[in-house]
Amino acid sequence: MNKPADQSAFETPKVTTGPLPASRKVYSHPLPDLAVPHREIDLHPSANEPPVAVYDTSGPYTDPSVTIDVEKGLARDRRDWVLERGGVEEYEGRHVKPEDNGGANGKYLAREFPVRHRPLRGLDGHKVTQYEFAKAGVITKEMVYVATRENMGRAQAHEDAAATIADGQSFGAHIPEFITPEFVRDEIASGRAIIPCNINHAELEPQIIGRNFLVKINANIGNSAVTSSVEEEVDKMVWAIRWGADNVMDLSTGRNIHNTREWILRNSPVPIGTVPIYQALEKVDGVAENLTWEIYRDTLIEQAEQGVDYFTIHAGVRLAYIHLTANRVTGIVSRGGSIMAKWMLAHHKESFLYTHFEEICDIMRKYDVSFSLGDGLRPGATADANDAAQFAELETLGELTKVAWAKGCQVMIEGPGHVPMHKIKVNMDKQLRECGEAPFYTLGPLTTDIAPGYDHITSGIGAAMIGWFGTAMLCYVTPKEHLGLPDRDDVKVGVITYKLAAHAADLAKGHPTAHLRDDAVSRARFDFRWEDQFNLALDPETARDFHDQTLPKEAHKVAHFCSMCGPKFCSMKITQEVRDYTAGLSDNERADLEKQAAAARAGMAEKSKEFMDKGGEIYLSESGEVREPIE
Amino acid sequence: MNKPADQSAFETPKVTTGPLPASRKVYSHPLPDLAVPHREIDLHPSANEPPVAVYDTSGPYTDPSVTIDVEKGLARDRRDWVLERGGVEEYEGRHVKPEDNGGANGKYLAREFPVRHRPLRGLDGHKVTQYEFAKAGVITKEMVYVATRENMGRAQAHEDAAATIADGQSFGAHIPEFITPEFVRDEIASGRAIIPCNINHAELEPQIIGRNFLVKINANIGNSAVTSSVEEEVDKMVWAIRWGADNVMDLSTGRNIHNTREWILRNSPVPIGTVPIYQALEKVDGVAENLTWEIYRDTLIEQAEQGVDYFTIHAGVRLAYIHLTANRVTGIVSRGGSIMAKWMLAHHKESFLYTHFEEICDIMRKYDVSFSLGDGLRPGATADANDAAQFAELETLGELTKVAWAKGCQVMIEGPGHVPMHKIKVNMDKQLRECGEAPFYTLGPLTTDIAPGYDHITSGIGAAMIGWFGTAMLCYVTPKEHLGLPDRDDVKVGVITYKLAAHAADLAKGHPTAHLRDDAVSRARFDFRWEDQFNLALDPETARDFHDQTLPKEAHKVAHFCSMCGPKFCSMKITQEVRDYTAGLSDNERADLEKQAAAARAGMAEKSKEFMDKGGEIYLSESGEVREPIE
Repeated sequence: MNKPADQSAFETPKVTTGPLPASRKVYSHPLPDLAVPHREIDLHPSANEPPVAVYDTSGPYTDPSVTIDVEKGLARDRRDWVLERGGVEEYEGRHVKPEDNGGANGKYLAREFPVRHRPLRGLDGHKVTQYEFAKAGVITKEMVYVATRENMGRAQAHEDAAATIADGQSFGAHIPEFITPEFVRDEIASGRAIIPCNINHAELEPQIIGRNFLVKINANIGNSAVTSSVEEEVDKMVWAIRWGADNVMDLSTGRNIHNTREWILRNSPVPIGTVPIYQALEKVDGVAENLTWEIYRDTLIEQAEQGVDYFTIHAGVRLAYIHLTANRVTGIVSRGGSIMAKWMLAHHKESFLYTHFEEICDIMRKYDVSFSLGDGLRPGATADANDAAQFAELETLGELTKVAWAKGCQVMIEGPGHVPMHKIKVNMDKQLRECGEAPFYTLGPLTTDIAPGYDHITSGIGAAMIGWFGTAMLCYVTPKEHLGLPDRDDVKVGVITYKLAAHAADLAKGHPTAHLRDDAVSRARFDFRWEDQFNLALDPETARDFHDQTLPKEAHKVAHFCSMCGPKFCSMKITQEVRDYTAGLSDNERADLEKQAAAARAGMAEKSKEFMDKGGEIYLSESGEVREPIE
Repeated sequence: MNKPADQSAFETPKVTTGPLPASRKVYSHPLPDLAVPHREIDLHPSANEPPVAVYDTSGPYTDPSVTIDVEKGLARDRRDWVLERGGVEEYEGRHVKPEDNGGANGKYLAREFPVRHRPLRGLDGHKVTQYEFAKAGVITKEMVYVATRENMGRAQAHEDAAATIADGQSFGAHIPEFITPEFVRDEIASGRAIIPCNINHAELEPQIIGRNFLVKINANIGNSAVTSSVEEEVDKMVWAIRWGADNVMDLSTGRNIHNTREWILRNSPVPIGTVPIYQALEKVDGVAENLTWEIYRDTLIEQAEQGVDYFTIHAGVRLAYIHLTANRVTGIVSRGGSIMAKWMLAHHKESFLYTHFEEICDIMRKYDVSFSLGDGLRPGATADANDAAQFAELETLGELTKVAWAKGCQVMIEGPGHVPMHKIKVNMDKQLRECGEAPFYTLGPLTTDIAPGYDHITSGIGAAMIGWFGTAMLCYVTPKEHLGLPDRDDVKVGVITYKLAAHAADLAKGHPTAHLRDDAVSRARFDFRWEDQFNLALDPETARDFHDQTLPKEAHKVAHFCSMCGPKFCSMKITQEVRDYTAGLSDNERADLEKQAAAARAGMAEKSKEFMDKGGEIYLSESGEVREPIE
């Protein structure tokens, strides 16, 4: 893999900017220096409806009033929030070493990000993390921000009105009708929610992850040893958040990991997660047994100083659990899990992630990097779901959660993987129990293994279900899963699939306002407001394109029919006649109808009884045939 | 819409033939004159595994030994089965009238199918339907055929062995380890299953629909008033079954309905369903109020003589229920439901489908056309799910089911539609209760309304769930739903999505052998048998294409790595090392490891207790701060 960096690694990344169709970015100001975005989708005047407010993850890229300069990065407003509450120091920070970029140099080295910011770190004896502030009863600006954000600009009154028609089955989640900063603080203090927000990620628009909030999604990007460039990855990040990714993980491997990540972080308004062991492995040239705690520790600090918001750490893969995977169909499929398994086998020692866990906590606390406790023994096949190895690790993760909390850190827990539908809920229930309700963050799960090329769907099914049951964040799967690296189109399909799965979960949990967007789409459909239907869609471009493939003319977008039934007969039109008819009924006529309906339903029951009384004999009877009652 | 028929309407339809990759068609012969197909997928010799048997819906089109001539249609073997059991007569049959093709003539009229077969019909006082035979204790050839087909060529012993490692939650379904003809007969006699098999559809390869069998899927095709041709529809049918559609509904509207359907039926090895009211409406030039019972009756006979296997009949939409839809967000969205609503409102009379229901049964019995009792009041928006209108109709459908059974007919029941996840199971439970366990046949349901362009996925989620809960057949939804007419690519995506949803349901129900294909894929993945992974996939072409986009070289298909991690580090490779290590353990070492694992898990519990005993205090304590216990 000794090829030069792609030419594009030396160019300014091109990213997609500009608002989505019919959309405006609107800011709420819960505090004078906080501008919390949501998106409003304007409807056609004939709708006579207010704009529809939707959650907006796209950052300044969709705000035409902001000048985007990828060479400078986004505005770093959040640095002031951190500095003003104190307890941190600015320092020189670690300098980039050649091994941080896999030893790439000359034409192999991707261009450094042009600006260098000196990092901050927390001081001993001071509160730094959101968990620490929350436990101490302090409401931070991040908490105020996410509370406003979850409400999507709605005022309390509106929220209450909307809530009256929501229903759902929440499986023990408690979603309030209106999110207050105090509710956010309490959820964080209890460990049930986190705000991934490294104090060095000053470009961040904070966001909350917990089962009493909107279900979030994560998109994975990252170059690999085999293919892809810095420019592509920055573009993918901006592209992923444009379509709704709440979080992005940079899973880069190979060379140029440090520089790629710097470009991503400086341009990312969403939390960025990583798996630090991937970079540590590159530093020892891919030889797992050469990993050391010191190299790993140095990598944590390197990434924490850059501003990574959460680290996946596979500290629950213990030496004693490795043999439990031997009879699996697909063994250990987590990269991090297998790296550590290999290290432990080579040294016959307990994982340094486990033995040094408290030191890891101390580092992560200083920067408020959240834990994403990795499931290194997750099943890679439905055959391996819910086995002893997986659950042994989950129990250990539960214990480590409590250690991390005791150290003041924010924690979420990663989950499977490949799980058939009937084994999904057990995962959720066990996770809540073992991990003290710390947020669950699952990959899918994939509900069958037989559809490579469609694993965004096999997993979207599992994701919607486990999101309903209580998972706080769903890690997307793209159509390329198991087959190749996702390109831009795959990223979009993965994000939209997971947005719809997360939304289906919000609806089913009974989130008080989730249905507002569904109902707006449905009304637009009923009224033949085609443009509104496109604009309200998760993916307006695809919706419009699909319509135009059949009926391309502009006139068809105002036509009161569609390609399914054609202009002569239309079921939606007939419903309007039903409405007119019903509206024209007198009270007497209406009462009479109700009586008839009741009689129809009762008559049915009577007829049924009569039939059964006759022995449920079938109509036809040939001589000699045995008549059987209908069971 | 007075445009000439497309030129292709006069050409021989082109269809896709030839086997799927690495696949052979294998026939079992439970009786000398029955050849029951399944597909076997050969694996690479290095796998040292037998071929994987999968259900095969593709008919003779994938058998290289059969010469396909679309002008002649498929072989009509099944005619002999019908004739040899007697009770039917051949007769001249109805002659095609101009209105059967919407009055199209000259260059507007699509070419007639070149061969005309005289129809059969049942005689009074004789058994004709599978239900009648089953009730009388008679096992038909169709029953023998479907029993063998469900077993996919497996012998009892193999089946039993495989069953030992299946598990699942079946919600009251009783899926035997091995399907016998007697089991099939009993399921049909109880009304829990149907074999849609018009005696005039002699080209049919029979198939069973019921919740104690593999979950089936249906693909909708059909030209419309606005677009598409005969050739396209025949091609779509062959294309849909190639990818796994168990049933196809021809929902054609506009002109040339009769001729289009004839081409489809004569070339279809799968059951074809229709909604006869669509054609009846064309016969009255699209004016619903001009419909009459006589026109509808004539249409039923026309289609029954052609060999349509099941009719969607919206007889549960009663006059007294119409006003219940007035306050819905999207009113009545079923075409059939709204046609009947319009008719009833215009005449202020009960639906002729309801008042003439027994006569409809008499006609359908004569040809063994199965009922698919349509849900004309199904919700068209999640907001309208499970409302009074929907459930009033479902109760009426339950009653009609018993009437149809009493008349000797086979029956299934159609279901929603748009239903958020938390309201899905109620639908299934109520359907089982109201309709005496007659098979449920649902459209999706879509679990959210906000993703037009992705409704194969919003509905695939609901389909997998309701299939798990007990739905016997899932009607596919394509990406074009709500937006346009599906083309060939959409049909494929819809079919594959629903195949994976149905399979996920089979797995979760605990179908005894469903996991065999999953496990074969997983083993292929683990062994880096890329070709096997592609060939075992529901869509081998897409899987291969996605792989090749990242790693196009042939050498990469035998490489022991993939594009995700690259050649240097590979988690699957490390698992092999874990296996070698575990296999090399002595008994003592292994016992020791078990002890350590137990200690690790117990130690965790102890540490946790210790932490809680200390009051769950967090590590950091600044003077003056209140320490809170961790809840």
